[in-house]
Amino acid sequence: MSKKIQPLKGFRDFLPKDAIKRQKVLDTIRNIFENFGYDPLETPSLEYQELLLNKYGEEANKLIYAFEDLGGRKVALKYDQTVPTSRIISTYKEEVAMPWKRYQIQNVWRAENPQKGRFREFLQCDIDIFGTKSIVSDAEIINTAWKVLEKLGFKNIKVLINDREILYDIMKKNKISNDLQSSVIQSIDKLDKKSESEIKKELISKKILASQVNKLFKSIKEAKPSSKLSDLFALLESFGILEKDIEFTPFLSRGLDYYTGTIFEIKIPNYEAGSIAGGGRYDNLIEKLSGTNIPAVGISFGFDRLIDALEENKLLKEEITSTKVLVTIFSEKHLTNSIQIVNLLRNSGISSEIYPDTKDKLQKQLKYADKKGILWVVIIGPEEIIKGNVTLKNLKSKTQETIPSQALLTKIT
Amino acid sequence: MSKKIQPLKGFRDFLPKDAIKRQKVLDTIRNIFENFGYDPLETPSLEYQELLLNKYGEEANKLIYAFEDLGGRKVALKYDQTVPTSRIISTYKEEVAMPWKRYQIQNVWRAENPQKGRFREFLQCDIDIFGTKSIVSDAEIINTAWKVLEKLGFKNIKVLINDREILYDIMKKNKISNDLQSSVIQSIDKLDKKSESEIKKELISKKILASQVNKLFKSIKEAKPSSKLSDLFALLESFGILEKDIEFTPFLSRGLDYYTGTIFEIKIPNYEAGSIAGGGRYDNLIEKLSGTNIPAVGISFGFDRLIDALEENKLLKEEITSTKVLVTIFSEKHLTNSIQIVNLLRNSGISSEIYPDTKDKLQKQLKYADKKGILWVVIIGPEEIIKGNVTLKNLKSKTQETIPSQALLTKIT
Repeated sequence: MSKKIQPLKGFRDFLPKDAIKRQKVLDTIRNIFENFGYDPLETPSLEYQELLLNKYGEEANKLIYAFEDLGGRKVALKYDQTVPTSRIISTYKEEVAMPWKRYQIQNVWRAENPQKGRFREFLQCDIDIFGTKSIVSDAEIINTAWKVLEKLGFKNIKVLINDREILYDIMKKNKISNDLQSSVIQSIDKLDKKSESEIKKELISKKILASQVNKLFKSIKEAKPSSKLSDLFALLESFGILEKDIEFTPFLSRGLDYYTGTIFEIKIPNYEAGSIAGGGRYDNLIEKLSGTNIPAVGISFGFDRLIDALEENKLLKEEITSTKVLVTIFSEKHLTNSIQIVNLLRNSGISSEIYPDTKDKLQKQLKYADKKGILWVVIIGPEEIIKGNVTLKNLKSKTQETIPSQALLTKIT
Repeated sequence: MSKKIQPLKGFRDFLPKDAIKRQKVLDTIRNIFENFGYDPLETPSLEYQELLLNKYGEEANKLIYAFEDLGGRKVALKYDQTVPTSRIISTYKEEVAMPWKRYQIQNVWRAENPQKGRFREFLQCDIDIFGTKSIVSDAEIINTAWKVLEKLGFKNIKVLINDREILYDIMKKNKISNDLQSSVIQSIDKLDKKSESEIKKELISKKILASQVNKLFKSIKEAKPSSKLSDLFALLESFGILEKDIEFTPFLSRGLDYYTGTIFEIKIPNYEAGSIAGGGRYDNLIEKLSGTNIPAVGISFGFDRLIDALEENKLLKEEITSTKVLVTIFSEKHLTNSIQIVNLLRNSGISSEIYPDTKDKLQKQLKYADKKGILWVVIIGPEEIIKGNVTLKNLKSKTQETIPSQALLTKIT
C-alpha cells in the first residue's frame, strides 16, 4: 500500500470519538425498543437479487448493490429491513406469534449519490407491528419513536400525521385515474424540497390538467382529519404526547409506494434538514412479498440524521475514550504492583487501562493519558509501595494526592 | 414472490430467540472490552479490492467477495478487521494516540464452503494494541479475552501459548529454507485436524527431506518456553490467570502468515470444536499495509463458536422475548385505562407491551402472551376500574390476584 487507500465514496470510518457516541445512542434506542416490547430480528446483509429487485420501485432498482458471487448466484446487499422481514414472516409463519412486534437495527446499502447526510452504507433502526389493523398499533409505533427522541433529550418533538386514504379519496373525487395516483403522491412528497408551483408543473407534465391540479391542491389544503385519525390523536394523547405536538398534515404523502393508511413523520423543530423518523401503515406489502395476508405498521429512524440532529442540539457528550483511569508503570520492577491496582479498578467496574509499555518514561505515559482524554492517572512507585499508597492525579483539575490504595475506589467513583 | 426465497447458503436469519441471546453475549463482550480500556472503531463493509487482495495469502484471495460496483469501482466486502484498521492507522496517524487500544465488533464475509459452525457472513470481535512491543500488551490482550470468557460463565479456560520466534529458530536450526518456512507453519497448523503422519507426508510433498521432517518434529516436541514466554506467563499470573491454565504449546502455529512473535489460542476443555479465540503478535503487518512501522498484538473471538460453546455448556438462558408484562385490553371502551398501566410500567423500566388490537377477546390475548413467553399479564376491566384495581396473572405459576394498581410495580419488580 504505497499510496494511501481511502474509504469508498459514501462509506465511512468511525474513529472512537464518533463510534462511542453512536454506540451510546444505539443503546438508548435499543433500550426503549425493548422496554416497549419489541424483540430483535437480524437478517443477512446479502440476499438473492430476486428478493430485492422490483420491490421498491424502478428508481430503487438502480441503487441496489447487485452482483454475481463466486458461485454464479445473483446476490444483492440489503436495501431496507422490510423486504427481508417479509421473507422471514413467509418462512417462519409458525414460529412468529402474531401480532408480532420486532425491531431491527442493521446496515443497509444504497448506491445513491453521496451528499451531506446521505451515505451508501447506513444504519436503519426499524420497528414494526405485524398482524393487526388496529389503530392501537399505529399509536404504539408513533409513541415508541417519540419516546426514543424524548429519552435522547430532544424538546419540542412534532409528529406530522396524514392518511393515504384521505389522499386517495381526494384524488378519486378529483378524477385522477388509478394508474396516476402513486405518481401524484411521489410528486406531492417533494413539497418540502420544491415549491408548490414547481410541483404543480411536474403534475401537469404527468398529463394532469392544470384545472385538475389546482382543484387537487385546494382539496388537500381543505382536508380535515378523518374520524380514524381523530381516534389516533386521542390515543397518542393517552400515551402522553401533547395535543400541540400532533399535527394533521394533509400534504404529507411519503414517497414509498406501499403505504395504505396512516403515514407519519417525526420532526425536531430546531433541526431543519428534515424528518428524523418516518413510517406508516402498509397492509398489502407482506401479502405481495410473501403470499400471506398480514397487515403491518412501522417506522424507521434515519440514524445518521438522528446523530446529526443530536449534535446540532448539543445533546451528545464529547468523549474521546470510555477509559476513566490510566494506571502507569513506574518501572519494570514495579509492574506487578500496577497490575494489582488495575485488577482492583476493573473488578469494581471502573474502566481502566494499564500503560502497555514498561519502557516509556512517566512523562510519556501522562502525555498519553492526556491525549487520549483519560481523566485519572494512578502512579505507584517505590515510595507509594512501601507505605501501601498510590498517587492519584486528576488531569483536568491538574491536582494530585497520595492516598492509601484502599481509598482509591471511593475517590474515583 | 410465489415460491419461497431462502436465505443464501452460509447466511443466517436470527429470530428473536437467537437474536436476544447474541445481543446479551455481545453486551458482555463490549462491557469487558470497555472496562479494560479499549475504544470502539467501525470501518465500512465495502472497501477497494486493492486494499484487501493479496493481504491474507492466496487461499484467502479466492474467498473474498469481490465485485464491480455501478460506478465501475472494484470493491470487496471486508474479510477481517485488521487490514481495514491498518488503513485507519495510515490515514489518521495524528488522531490516534499510540499505544492505541481499540476494539472492533463487526461482520466480515468469506465465501468459504459452509459447514457446521462456518458461515459466509459472521461477526468478528477483535481487540488489538498497536504501537508497542512490550510483553505487557501481549499479556493484556490474553487477559482481556480470558476475562470475557470468565464473565460469560466458562470454567476451566485454557490458554495455549507459543512463540513464532521459537518455531522460526527451530526451522533455521533444521535448515528449512526461508521460502519454505511459512508453508511449513501452515502445515503444522493443521495438527489439530490431521494426524502427525499426515502432516509429515504433507511436508515431504513440499520437498522437505523425510529425515529433516522427523528432526523438525523432535525439536518442536522438545522445545521449552523462552525467557520472554516465561515473563509472559508470570504477567498472566499477576493478572489473575492460574498457572495450571496456561499451557506452553510448541506445536501451536496459527495459520496466518503475518504473526511474528507470541501466538495464542483460548480453549474451553468441554468444548471440542476448537479454540474460541486466537491471536498473536504481528509487528510487521501494519508497516507492510500502511508504510508506517507500528508493532501490534491482538486477539479475535469467533463469535459463532463462542455462542455454540455457551449453548453446549448451558450458559445461555432461553428467552424468547425480553417483554415482561402484557397489558391486555378489556374492550375498546377501557383502552385508555390499559394505556395508563402500560405507561406506568414502562416509565418504571419494566419491559411491557399493550396488546395491539382492541378487537381480540381476552382469551386470544392470553394465548398470545403465552406463545410469546411473556410471564405477567395485566387485566383491567370495569370491575377493576371502579375499585382502582388491576388483575395480575402469572402465566408460569398459573395464579392470579386482584390488587390495587399502585401495588403493581412492587409485585412485578
